[in-house]
Amino acid sequence: MQFTSEQLLDDGVLAREFTLGEIPGTLWTPASSAPVPLILMAHNNGLPKGAARLVARARHSAAHGYAVASIDASGCGDRPRSAADEQARAELRRAMQAGEPVDEIFESFIGPLVENAVPEWRTTLDALLALPEIGGPVGYSGWTALGIRLAVAEPRIAAAGLFAGGYVPRAQREEARQVTVPLLFLLQWDDEGNPRQRALDLFDAFGATEKTLHANLGGHTGTPWFEVEDGNRFFDRHLK
Amino acid sequence: MQFTSEQLLDDGVLAREFTLGEIPGTLWTPASSAPVPLILMAHNNGLPKGAARLVARARHSAAHGYAVASIDASGCGDRPRSAADEQARAELRRAMQAGEPVDEIFESFIGPLVENAVPEWRTTLDALLALPEIGGPVGYSGWTALGIRLAVAEPRIAAAGLFAGGYVPRAQREEARQVTVPLLFLLQWDDEGNPRQRALDLFDAFGATEKTLHANLGGHTGTPWFEVEDGNRFFDRHLK
Repeated sequence: MQFTSEQLLDDGVLAREFTLGEIPGTLWTPASSAPVPLILMAHNNGLPKGAARLVARARHSAAHGYAVASIDASGCGDRPRSAADEQARAELRRAMQAGEPVDEIFESFIGPLVENAVPEWRTTLDALLALPEIGGPVGYSGWTALGIRLAVAEPRIAAAGLFAGGYVPRAQREEARQVTVPLLFLLQWDDEGNPRQRALDLFDAFGATEKTLHANLGGHTGTPWFEVEDGNRFFDRHLK
Repeated sequence: MQFTSEQLLDDGVLAREFTLGEIPGTLWTPASSAPVPLILMAHNNGLPKGAARLVARARHSAAHGYAVASIDASGCGDRPRSAADEQARAELRRAMQAGEPVDEIFESFIGPLVENAVPEWRTTLDALLALPEIGGPVGYSGWTALGIRLAVAEPRIAAAGLFAGGYVPRAQREEARQVTVPLLFLLQWDDEGNPRQRALDLFDAFGATEKTLHANLGGHTGTPWFEVEDGNRFFDRHLK
C-alpha cells in the first residue's frame, strides 16, 4: 500500500490517497493517537470513491472517530470498464428510455461487478488492518449488493449499514439470509428506480437477528443528513 | 392542576403525580432552571400511565432535557371503564381465543376511547403550558391512534413519535393524510397482533413531508432500547 498524497482537512481528518497494486483508494482517519475501528465505504453500483456524497459521509464518520476507506474496485469508479460492461450500460440506457424491463440487463453487469470487486476489497482490508493507526473491528457502509457478498465472504465484517437504492443481483438476494451481522438498512420510500417492495422483501430476508430498517420519505438522492449521524451511532453500538 | 406527590429520582428527574379535575397524571421534569420543551406520552390503547415501559421512556426523555407528561384519560389506565367497554374487551378476548376476526370489535371500543381521550389531553396540555418550568414546543410520543387524532385537532403538537403496534381505527387511518407534522414511526417487524402491511400502508398515508420509519426485528414488546435514544434525537431536531 503506497500513499500518494495527503490532505489535512479542517475537521482534523487526514485524507490520504493510496494505491494497492492496480487499486486506487482513499483513507480518511481522525486525529487520534490510539488505533480506531474501520469502516469500508462503497458507493452504489460501482460509482467512484470520489463522489461528493460518499466523500461527505466518509469525512463525517472519520471526524466521529472512525478510519474510513473506499476504493475504486475493478470496473468501478474511474477504473476502465470492459467492452461487455460498456455494452450492457448502453443497453440499459436504451431500455430505460424505451420503458422496457431492465432486470436482466442489470443482472448481466452488476453481478460480475460485485464478484470482481470482492477480492479487491478483501486485499484492501488486509492492507488497512496492517496499518498501526487502524485497529478493528470492521464495519461496512453503502452499496447493498457488495455488502451482502462481503458480509458472507469476509468474517472480519462485524456490522453493516446498507443503502437499499440499487439493483441487487439474484445471487445476493438469495444469500441475504446468510448475512447474520447486525444491519442498518436505509431505504428511500419513493426511490424512483428501485421498487419499494423488493427492498422490504430483502430486509425481511436478511438472516441477522439484529436488523433495523430506516425509511425516509423522498426519492433516491433524498436521504436526510441525520441518517449519517444515525449510521455513526449504529456503528458505535457494534464497533466500539 | 394539583400536585399530589413528588419524588426526586436518582437521575435528577423530578416525578410528580397530579390531578386535573378527574384526570390523574404524572409529570417528569429535568433538573433545569430554564423552561423546557414538553412531550406528551401516551401508552397504547389506553394502558396505564404507570406501566413500567412508559415510565422508563418518560424518565429517560426527562433526563435528556424534556418535560414529559402522561395521563390516564377517560376510560384509560386505572380510570373506570364503561359497561360497553368491558363487554367489548370480553368479546375481544373470546374472539381472539376462537381465532375469529377482531377488527370490528377493536373498532367498537378503540374508536370511542380515542375520541374521549382527546379533550382530556388538550385540557392537560393547557394546564401544563401554564407552568413556568414548561416552555414549548410540544411533541407527542406513543399511541398511534391518539397521536393522529391529537396531531390533527391540536395545532400545538409540533412533532410526533408514533408506535405502530396497536389497532388504529378507520377514522384515524383516514385522517392520517392530514397529519403534516414531522413523524417518527416505530414498527416491530414481527408484531404478533398487528399486521405489518397495515402499518406500512399507514406510514405511506401520513401527509407529513418529513417522516421516518424505524422498523426492528422482533415482536410487539421487543423494541430495542436505542429507539428511545433515537426518539430523543428526533425530538431534538424538531423541538429544540
